[in-house]
Amino acid sequence: MTNPIEILGFVAAVLTTTAFLPQVYTTWKTKSVEGLSLTMLFIFISGLLCWLVYGFLIDSVPIILANFVTVILGFLLLFFKIRYKNR
Amino acid sequence: MTNPIEILGFVAAVLTTTAFLPQVYTTWKTKSVEGLSLTMLFIFISGLLCWLVYGFLIDSVPIILANFVTVILGFLLLFFKIRYKNR
Repeated sequence: MTNPIEILGFVAAVLTTTAFLPQVYTTWKTKSVEGLSLTMLFIFISGLLCWLVYGFLIDSVPIILANFVTVILGFLLLFFKIRYKNR
Repeated sequence: MTNPIEILGFVAAVLTTTAFLPQVYTTWKTKSVEGLSLTMLFIFISGLLCWLVYGFLIDSVPIILANFVTVILGFLLLFFKIRYKNR
């Protein structure tokens, strides 16, 4: 069975990932990407990839899952940024 | 000496925290908080607090530091949201 510490980690993962979803949804719906900085996106995605590797190295499933999902969302924002930049 | 895994964690912490700073700076400068959802801020701060406790429980200094700094920034955004909502 999963231990209570892991459960807390999963709760944390769900909460911080959920808080990030409106940004992705709003960008997708409005196609407005002026407010998204490409530099910021690169820094953010690099950070998430480091967290992902760190999660594997310390064997933390919540960190792996949280950053796996968020890095996909980060790449999605990057895709929107490139795709909608000329609108 | 700090081990390579911890260093990777610190790099991750610096990168994701740095990526969050422009949001705080822009909100502070523009005093524009319409785009900030109070519900999202509560979910985000709750998530960060869970990560903070999780960091202590699994003894991960990078997770503790990253979420300690980010939770302060989160509370700062919450303060801006409440302070500037009537502008």
